[in-house]
Amino acid sequence: MPQGSHSVTVRAVIPAEVGMLGRVMAALGAAGGEVGAVDLVRSSRGATVRDITVYTGDESGEAALSAALDDLDGVEIESINDQIFLAHAGGKLGMKNSARVSTRDDLAMAYTPGVARVCMAIHDDFDAAWDYTIKGNSVMVVSDGSSVVGQGDLGPEAALPALEAKCMFLRELAGVDAFPLPVTARDPDEIAGIVERTSSVFAGVQLTDVAAPRCFTLRRTLVNNLDIPVFSDDQGGTAVALLAALTNGLKLAGKKLADARVVVSGLGPGGVATVRLLAAAGAGAVIACDSRGAVHRGRSELGGELDRIAELTNPDNETGDARTLVRGADAFIGLSVPGLLNEDDVRGMADDPVVLALAMPEPEVSPAVARATGAVYATGRPDIPNQINSAVAFPGIWRGMLDTRATSLEAPMLLAAAEAIAAIPPAESPLSRESIVPSVLNPDLVPAVAAAVSRAATECGVARVPASA
Amino acid sequence: MPQGSHSVTVRAVIPAEVGMLGRVMAALGAAGGEVGAVDLVRSSRGATVRDITVYTGDESGEAALSAALDDLDGVEIESINDQIFLAHAGGKLGMKNSARVSTRDDLAMAYTPGVARVCMAIHDDFDAAWDYTIKGNSVMVVSDGSSVVGQGDLGPEAALPALEAKCMFLRELAGVDAFPLPVTARDPDEIAGIVERTSSVFAGVQLTDVAAPRCFTLRRTLVNNLDIPVFSDDQGGTAVALLAALTNGLKLAGKKLADARVVVSGLGPGGVATVRLLAAAGAGAVIACDSRGAVHRGRSELGGELDRIAELTNPDNETGDARTLVRGADAFIGLSVPGLLNEDDVRGMADDPVVLALAMPEPEVSPAVARATGAVYATGRPDIPNQINSAVAFPGIWRGMLDTRATSLEAPMLLAAAEAIAAIPPAESPLSRESIVPSVLNPDLVPAVAAAVSRAATECGVARVPASA
Repeated sequence: MPQGSHSVTVRAVIPAEVGMLGRVMAALGAAGGEVGAVDLVRSSRGATVRDITVYTGDESGEAALSAALDDLDGVEIESINDQIFLAHAGGKLGMKNSARVSTRDDLAMAYTPGVARVCMAIHDDFDAAWDYTIKGNSVMVVSDGSSVVGQGDLGPEAALPALEAKCMFLRELAGVDAFPLPVTARDPDEIAGIVERTSSVFAGVQLTDVAAPRCFTLRRTLVNNLDIPVFSDDQGGTAVALLAALTNGLKLAGKKLADARVVVSGLGPGGVATVRLLAAAGAGAVIACDSRGAVHRGRSELGGELDRIAELTNPDNETGDARTLVRGADAFIGLSVPGLLNEDDVRGMADDPVVLALAMPEPEVSPAVARATGAVYATGRPDIPNQINSAVAFPGIWRGMLDTRATSLEAPMLLAAAEAIAAIPPAESPLSRESIVPSVLNPDLVPAVAAAVSRAATECGVARVPASA
Repeated sequence: MPQGSHSVTVRAVIPAEVGMLGRVMAALGAAGGEVGAVDLVRSSRGATVRDITVYTGDESGEAALSAALDDLDGVEIESINDQIFLAHAGGKLGMKNSARVSTRDDLAMAYTPGVARVCMAIHDDFDAAWDYTIKGNSVMVVSDGSSVVGQGDLGPEAALPALEAKCMFLRELAGVDAFPLPVTARDPDEIAGIVERTSSVFAGVQLTDVAAPRCFTLRRTLVNNLDIPVFSDDQGGTAVALLAALTNGLKLAGKKLADARVVVSGLGPGGVATVRLLAAAGAGAVIACDSRGAVHRGRSELGGELDRIAELTNPDNETGDARTLVRGADAFIGLSVPGLLNEDDVRGMADDPVVLALAMPEPEVSPAVARATGAVYATGRPDIPNQINSAVAFPGIWRGMLDTRATSLEAPMLLAAAEAIAAIPPAESPLSRESIVPSVLNPDLVPAVAAAVSRAATECGVARVPASA
């Protein structure tokens, strides 16, 4: 696990004896901690108080650190604070005002009586809300909490920290004002009704952490009923990030998407959307597999999204499981289960294979296997090069959609986003095996994606405000 | 109307001739404008470009200004911008991040994998949402748009600028993060269902601009179903502001609320709430009137809120209209129609009468009548001393409720708020006829109200976190 996920700050009173700080650090190391920053808090009467940041392997590490310091004579622990929870204290977002409230004249403009004229203007022409309210830059980030960051059905309240994170990305990376809205409902039609009836203040709806198959129904209902874009980052966002990574992975191997054999394992929200986007991108031979093996036109139990996938993929109607079908494949895309493929499986792929293994916390192909086989390799993990995450896609996509006041999100806009992401010049080097997707934090990313999406929205005829040529 | 409500900025190119700027300003004045700030934009080749702020009586003023300048040789208008609409461009709110998103470690803490531990902690104990999400400082400001700032049923979208204004006040004055949520629904049960199912991210619900009688049903349903405070600023906020003003008005006259005869005209949301709060405050003789006259126990058609008011008020079961009943009254509270009372009516009141006349845009008693009679006088208008507005109450009330994580809003909390507002020392003078309510911008206001409400919430047993003694 990456350092950020389990780290504590130990505030300790340490006697001012020669070598004592070294003994403290040695004890923390012996207890399994990796010592990071050491800060002096205060120094007085023969002792110093220090904040020591310690990375631990898991949550049990805290007790071990505490026990280790207890064994040192004269050392006292004032507090041990979990960095993750400290970083979440009070939540991760707030509101800010963009007009002044400091004089009576400000009040008369922003509130009564001035505001009444603006209200009336919107009543006369609803489109005025785009100009004179927060609508034009606001996105609702909504979830029912049925599939929270890979932890399953935790309920709407528990989804909130993840929704807040998405909103932070939108604010920081794309200047979009996004508000997190967990919805306490289960039926997709009920959720859709609630989203629709609260959507007038928003220029778009981002669905996140909704379980399949509900997420498909919900998105389709909202797309039909709303005149603003509805975007699922688990679906469209993941698909765009994967298509960008695949594009660059195949480029390194000198292959074309139209000719490549691509096996996709896992047909949840991300898998289904990825397969459909690959088809839209012109992929020639995609084999999509769920836990029962390849989707083919002989499977009678499919239904729902998979019927459509059976039509779009698997030209030779192959059968079998992902492990079998990956033989000779140019690329493997995993959104399924840890450790699905072993070293032999990857060695059985075509030359210069591309392995995009997004199962969490452990990918379908382990880093060790990837190293041994020399595959071009990407995962969802932040501690390995080539992290693939929807966050590489959705901030720029929203910026582009808001800039054009798009009425909907169309497939060419997602394709344009993937192309723009793939074309981002790596910060310090040309395209390499370790930079097939740009960092979420790459400053060139969002402007490039936004421009591409704006253009595509305009070409699709869904831009209320066309992109400037 | 106050200056802020109709003002434009004229950007004009003015030839650099002696006296030309003076002629421009004279022309604007002759066209009915009152010239405010004059700023130099740029100066070049024999001409200067200036921004001239001009207050106009109404919206027709703009054309007159334009025509007046067209008559001046060599003067060109580059643009005329309406200040109110400029102040609303892009809306009045935005989001800000309170955690960092600048390194990969930040991402790993705020988002996957770190965030999963916080989500899980909330799943295990919902109360953790108060500590580790934005819930604890967040308020939903909601409306169906059925009664927008005195302009009637304009619909939810048109309510948004007014909702944004309330959110601005909460942010600027009380440090509360409030989000505006217009709801596209009409049935109070449906609105309540939507509010309930989107309320998990909020520590409270503020209802605003909802028409009677729906506003009463809606509030009652939400109060019954939610474990967070539900506050209607049109009801509780107006009532608190009026009780504070009445308290100080009677104090100036040396009278006590328990002995005073108070006639209330208008039984919409604010009137009903005011009458109930007056009763809770121990007012001895309140006569509540609607358009059919005094509410008394002989009126068979009352129903709803008015049945309860018939029980709480009018001890001698008097009949008649407000103009008749105000004879001999110590105070008149108007939330009804402009110009209801004339000079004789006010002269017929008791000595040192208190007149709180909130009808908009013109009060029940005109400023001229108030001057002539010498009554202690307050209105809802920002351009006359003693503006009475719910904004004097709701920011501090919310701060107090959030500080104690209150489960509900109880009458003693409203009474405590009114008492605190009445006790605010006027900035430059002792209590006077021109300062019976503090300014919304008085820096002492919110802390005093918040502290009083926190204490009252604790005494009522509705504080999750009791106020420190």
